[in-house]
Amino acid sequence: MNEQPSKITELVKTQYITIDRLTLESGEVIAPVILAYETYGQLNADRSNAVLICHALTGDAHVAGLNAATGKPGWWDTMVGPGKAFNTDEHFIICSNVIGGCQGSTGPASPNPATGEPYGLDFPLITIGDMVEAQLELVKHFGIDKLLAVAGGSMGGMQALVWAVNHPERLNSVIAIATTTHHSPQQIAFNEVGRQSIMADPHFNNGRYYDGKAPERGLAMARMVGHITYMSDASMADKFGRRFRERREDGAKLGTDFEVAGYLQYKGDSFVKRFDANSYLYLTRAIDLYDLAGQKSLPDSLAVARNIHFMVLAFKSDWLYPAHQSRELVRGCKLAGIDVTYCEINSTYGHDAFLLEVDEETHLISHFLRKVSRELHPTEGLLS
Amino acid sequence: MNEQPSKITELVKTQYITIDRLTLESGEVIAPVILAYETYGQLNADRSNAVLICHALTGDAHVAGLNAATGKPGWWDTMVGPGKAFNTDEHFIICSNVIGGCQGSTGPASPNPATGEPYGLDFPLITIGDMVEAQLELVKHFGIDKLLAVAGGSMGGMQALVWAVNHPERLNSVIAIATTTHHSPQQIAFNEVGRQSIMADPHFNNGRYYDGKAPERGLAMARMVGHITYMSDASMADKFGRRFRERREDGAKLGTDFEVAGYLQYKGDSFVKRFDANSYLYLTRAIDLYDLAGQKSLPDSLAVARNIHFMVLAFKSDWLYPAHQSRELVRGCKLAGIDVTYCEINSTYGHDAFLLEVDEETHLISHFLRKVSRELHPTEGLLS
Repeated sequence: MNEQPSKITELVKTQYITIDRLTLESGEVIAPVILAYETYGQLNADRSNAVLICHALTGDAHVAGLNAATGKPGWWDTMVGPGKAFNTDEHFIICSNVIGGCQGSTGPASPNPATGEPYGLDFPLITIGDMVEAQLELVKHFGIDKLLAVAGGSMGGMQALVWAVNHPERLNSVIAIATTTHHSPQQIAFNEVGRQSIMADPHFNNGRYYDGKAPERGLAMARMVGHITYMSDASMADKFGRRFRERREDGAKLGTDFEVAGYLQYKGDSFVKRFDANSYLYLTRAIDLYDLAGQKSLPDSLAVARNIHFMVLAFKSDWLYPAHQSRELVRGCKLAGIDVTYCEINSTYGHDAFLLEVDEETHLISHFLRKVSRELHPTEGLLS
Repeated sequence: MNEQPSKITELVKTQYITIDRLTLESGEVIAPVILAYETYGQLNADRSNAVLICHALTGDAHVAGLNAATGKPGWWDTMVGPGKAFNTDEHFIICSNVIGGCQGSTGPASPNPATGEPYGLDFPLITIGDMVEAQLELVKHFGIDKLLAVAGGSMGGMQALVWAVNHPERLNSVIAIATTTHHSPQQIAFNEVGRQSIMADPHFNNGRYYDGKAPERGLAMARMVGHITYMSDASMADKFGRRFRERREDGAKLGTDFEVAGYLQYKGDSFVKRFDANSYLYLTRAIDLYDLAGQKSLPDSLAVARNIHFMVLAFKSDWLYPAHQSRELVRGCKLAGIDVTYCEINSTYGHDAFLLEVDEETHLISHFLRKVSRELHPTEGLLS
């Protein structure tokens, strides 16, 4: 790569498909399901160059470029585009908002056909596996039999791993970043605090707040807790130290006058403008319930994915999804006879590193995708 | 020690002294200040065997034995008593509830003499240094010129360190356990979330809740966040794993059916029965503002404590006050020419280890106190 990667220049439009009915792991049915999605690059003639990117807890379908409606860049714009890690000159990139979400796909804020009102807590419990089933419908919609790769960080990595176990014939490779095979009790505990915080908000009203004030303060609190876990002690020290910001006008002596406190409040307050509290409940719950191995051992559950190439990336300062969880996944892959490449990236950014360590990720992922593509089309290099 | 340590057999009575007025670091005055305290063992003739134990955020004066009023054992009963680490056969142990607290000492729930109503948020901002000044009055009340040791874990360790820096002539040794010289932004952030959670509770009413319902849910939330930071991922995995408890009657699908979630809720709910939300605000704020070095370098600020023996203990799995913070303190001591002994104890209990790793702490602390006593009375061994 001698040239600077260029940008996606066209404005990107979020699109929608309707799935008539989706049967969930629980046996419950959602009908219909709308999925918001975006695509970048061109699907090739034999439909073999498609990469599905799965987003994390609060992400959306808008992974790259500038959105036509909002003008905002995508959440992984640094990684998806011409000449980037997910190279839109070569690959057809798909990203959709998960079911249960609130950024265009069907979730608890969507109208319940039975009542015409938003589902609220009548929305059925969803799992990471259910998110994958909905994505599968989208992939089929494009006539794609087999994805080149499914990639994602954090909750996105969980979806990528469930793709490999539940639909191994549907993908050639998995890129699982800063993720885990199951949530530990500490990880469950942090999510639980966020949920309790939302449910303790007087505006929560058992999930029926759509015609009034939303439980914004509770959701902001949940986001603040989340943010602490996304950063590292070191990155916070770099960013804020023990600096005070200017005292607020109200001069409350118990107020948020440390910079770090002001930052967290700002992050919490801006989050509530773009996210639905009920979705936060449902998606964190899906994460907590996620357990890739299930009743089997990890190698046994991974055995079906024997023909898939795995890339596993972790970050040294990530204490939310610590590297030892990735190494456990790698060990499971090796015991299952899976071809797996693992890298533990030096970073002080904590869990957020998967969004920030672009150079190293670009290097590793481009190389990995090139290797997987080459294996898929062994003669291509010779012909060109 | 061939015999099993025995118990404190007499019931312990919490006692109180009144300090007429206390000028705080801020320049504000609290008058009067009541301090709740307990003592164990006998003060010797030359008043040289007194050890002050300082409690952590939510502790109290009742460190050992069974309390006469409540019948409950002290919070460090495993460590204080005949033949124990803090050996009441040899030492006179003092423990008092900090100012700003809510377990007998003057704090925001105490009546404001100016109004006759509880102080609430009119209580002045207090610091770790202010806690120490109040304790100094108690020590003077006993006619003690110099303490054998000041000891404490977590916020108690901060008090012990401030004793050494602010009143070096008043103590022979410091035992600082699972603590730090200053709060990092991550540590501030966790406290901030707790405070925000309390202040977001609709019952908070700007701290004026004493004649109505207290902000119990907010305080419980703060405690839940705290508890996550007190444990380790490993100790949680040992204790709960991903086990479910029986589903609650209300069968809420988003409810707390993981054992870890139920445990945290229980801990939060029981905490609000014994703790005042305003005290939580004031004490966490004192902790966040604490910075032992202040405007100086750490070795410069410690230089005054050159004649004091330091013992610093940290625990490998403590991620709230990670061992590197203790090592920073030890480094500061060494650069200041202070005699310091350091031990990093293997434990999976996380921050809670300072309350739980009794055997190792007993071994280390008894040995340290024996050494300090021997140096103070070099001929005693020869005469007996």
